[in-house]
Amino acid sequence: MTSLLDHTIAAVVPADAGAAQAARELHTRLTKPPGSLGELEDLSVRLAGLAGSCPPPLPTPGAVAVFAGDHGVHACGVTPWPQEVTAQMVANFLAGGAVVNAFARQAGVGVTVVDVGVGSELEPADGLLIRKVRAGTRDFTVEPALTRDEAVAALQVGIEVAGVLIDGGAAILLTGDMGIANTTPAAALVAAFTGADPAAVTGRGTGVDDDTYTRKVSVVRAGLDRHRVSAADPIGALAAVGGLEHAAIAGYILGAAARRVPVVLDGVIAASAALVAAALAPDAVAAMVAGHRSVEPGATVALAHLGLTPLVDLGLRLGEGTGALLALPIVASAVRVLHEVATFDSAGVSEKSGISEK
Amino acid sequence: MTSLLDHTIAAVVPADAGAAQAARELHTRLTKPPGSLGELEDLSVRLAGLAGSCPPPLPTPGAVAVFAGDHGVHACGVTPWPQEVTAQMVANFLAGGAVVNAFARQAGVGVTVVDVGVGSELEPADGLLIRKVRAGTRDFTVEPALTRDEAVAALQVGIEVAGVLIDGGAAILLTGDMGIANTTPAAALVAAFTGADPAAVTGRGTGVDDDTYTRKVSVVRAGLDRHRVSAADPIGALAAVGGLEHAAIAGYILGAAARRVPVVLDGVIAASAALVAAALAPDAVAAMVAGHRSVEPGATVALAHLGLTPLVDLGLRLGEGTGALLALPIVASAVRVLHEVATFDSAGVSEKSGISEK
Repeated sequence: MTSLLDHTIAAVVPADAGAAQAARELHTRLTKPPGSLGELEDLSVRLAGLAGSCPPPLPTPGAVAVFAGDHGVHACGVTPWPQEVTAQMVANFLAGGAVVNAFARQAGVGVTVVDVGVGSELEPADGLLIRKVRAGTRDFTVEPALTRDEAVAALQVGIEVAGVLIDGGAAILLTGDMGIANTTPAAALVAAFTGADPAAVTGRGTGVDDDTYTRKVSVVRAGLDRHRVSAADPIGALAAVGGLEHAAIAGYILGAAARRVPVVLDGVIAASAALVAAALAPDAVAAMVAGHRSVEPGATVALAHLGLTPLVDLGLRLGEGTGALLALPIVASAVRVLHEVATFDSAGVSEKSGISEK
Repeated sequence: MTSLLDHTIAAVVPADAGAAQAARELHTRLTKPPGSLGELEDLSVRLAGLAGSCPPPLPTPGAVAVFAGDHGVHACGVTPWPQEVTAQMVANFLAGGAVVNAFARQAGVGVTVVDVGVGSELEPADGLLIRKVRAGTRDFTVEPALTRDEAVAALQVGIEVAGVLIDGGAAILLTGDMGIANTTPAAALVAAFTGADPAAVTGRGTGVDDDTYTRKVSVVRAGLDRHRVSAADPIGALAAVGGLEHAAIAGYILGAAARRVPVVLDGVIAASAALVAAALAPDAVAAMVAGHRSVEPGATVALAHLGLTPLVDLGLRLGEGTGALLALPIVASAVRVLHEVATFDSAGVSEKSGISEK
């Protein structure tokens, strides 16, 4: 029997080169100097290739899923924030009081919170999907964070959520995350999948002091050394040093890619999850849009590895989906150009001469 | 008798340090790690200072004015585009077919086109304000582009338009421009007001070849040499080497600042106009938001001179207001945080401990 994960990976197909080429060609006929929209032109071409049509569908409405989980490495002292803040922030999301809610209202996007691994029991609530695989990961400096089955289960939660949101009408998905200590497993995943040294991909997360930072790098290094993770076994690496929300986001990305729906990556949690998704299904990269460049160094290393250029670069390090939400209007604007801008012919605008005057 | 310009300059007052401080303090109590919104925190603090209230008003709805003019230096061969494209693009704006229209629809912003100096006569149309000061500037390599009176008249057109849009309900203004050859006077203004060498601030505009680029730098240098412009006489410099849309945008910025309404700068035309506005009323900088970093090198030099950090940096070089429109949702998101995000106290979220664990 084929699992949901296997089925989804098999459904991720290469981008349509013909549709991408049609978008590139259309750009030369629109009433603007060629290339004058910079990165937005490349983005719109990629989205045409993903959709297999030019123009690609307008990416509206969007939906953001905030995957929440807790982390065994919290016990190692990698953050000054208490673990219960994960559940408290979930309550804040559900009450509409977090930054992700404010940005989502601005962008006209619905917020769905997914408990894929919060340490405490959550009460059912509107806007909350309880899909807890387990109540937080294990401490990866001692044992694998997850079993392989747990990692696959969390991946499948993400696939399911992507499907629910797309079936509900979402034309673009955005990633979000909440999990105190979750930049530590993110750094470990980035190191595992890119080969970078832990010190080069570990950041200060929510803003840790020098001692905590040094300890955090040691924790990442200890996890990688203990489990001898390899990018050649993506699920093994994810299980060894990852997190439940990282796994779920990787699945969410695969679920979007399998449906040829773009997915806007938020910060370092999403970037690390994107490495897992790309290792499982390389063509999934075609569905990824890098929302922003997080301050976390692992995000930049991961995006470079994936060949993605972030749209927003404003020194954010909040997570929750906030960076992805800031990028969404830019993505929508890029696609609108292919739908709405007149051609030189249709607008009666003269093109530039081939020879410069005088 | 005090002119509209004098009156407007006198109405530009310093930012309110108390409101800015209140915003800075509020940020420390909101449910997010301190500083985690990066540049958006500084932006929201600046806008509180401008408005004199914390939170500052939500910047919605916005309005973009596209100021159009033609240029005597077109005769010098600084661009491969024919001059009639200015009027053709105005028609395209009015028909809704340009990129600025697509981006404005995405952002929910109305577009007003202002003929402040198009070379040909335009028919009246909905959405077009005909405020032609003269039918294009003079060639500044031969004589001053404008008389001082013409420069002041164009500044006052911009002030008037800002007032009309704010009286019509706009809570934030965006700059836009159209004028074949207008990056040449922009480069001259940036050199005049920053002291930079023409070669350091002249760019390839809509995409000129090497010969045209070399000629363009020479034209800028010739204008500056001929008129011995000085930043100490802003209106003199503007008249000597500027453009009608540059002057109008400078007035538009002053008009916004005098009303304590933020104004999002688009690309190099706006940045050069902002230098004029800042020279006339230094406190006007408090109202300026740098929408994006244009590919044009003069934009970066001007923004650095003004101490402004661009919000979007995507390789755009189109003008029209497109970069400002991409930035608008980011500005709105930054302000929403101060309105809508819960505090640690109100949401029952624990703060981080002062001492790192373990």
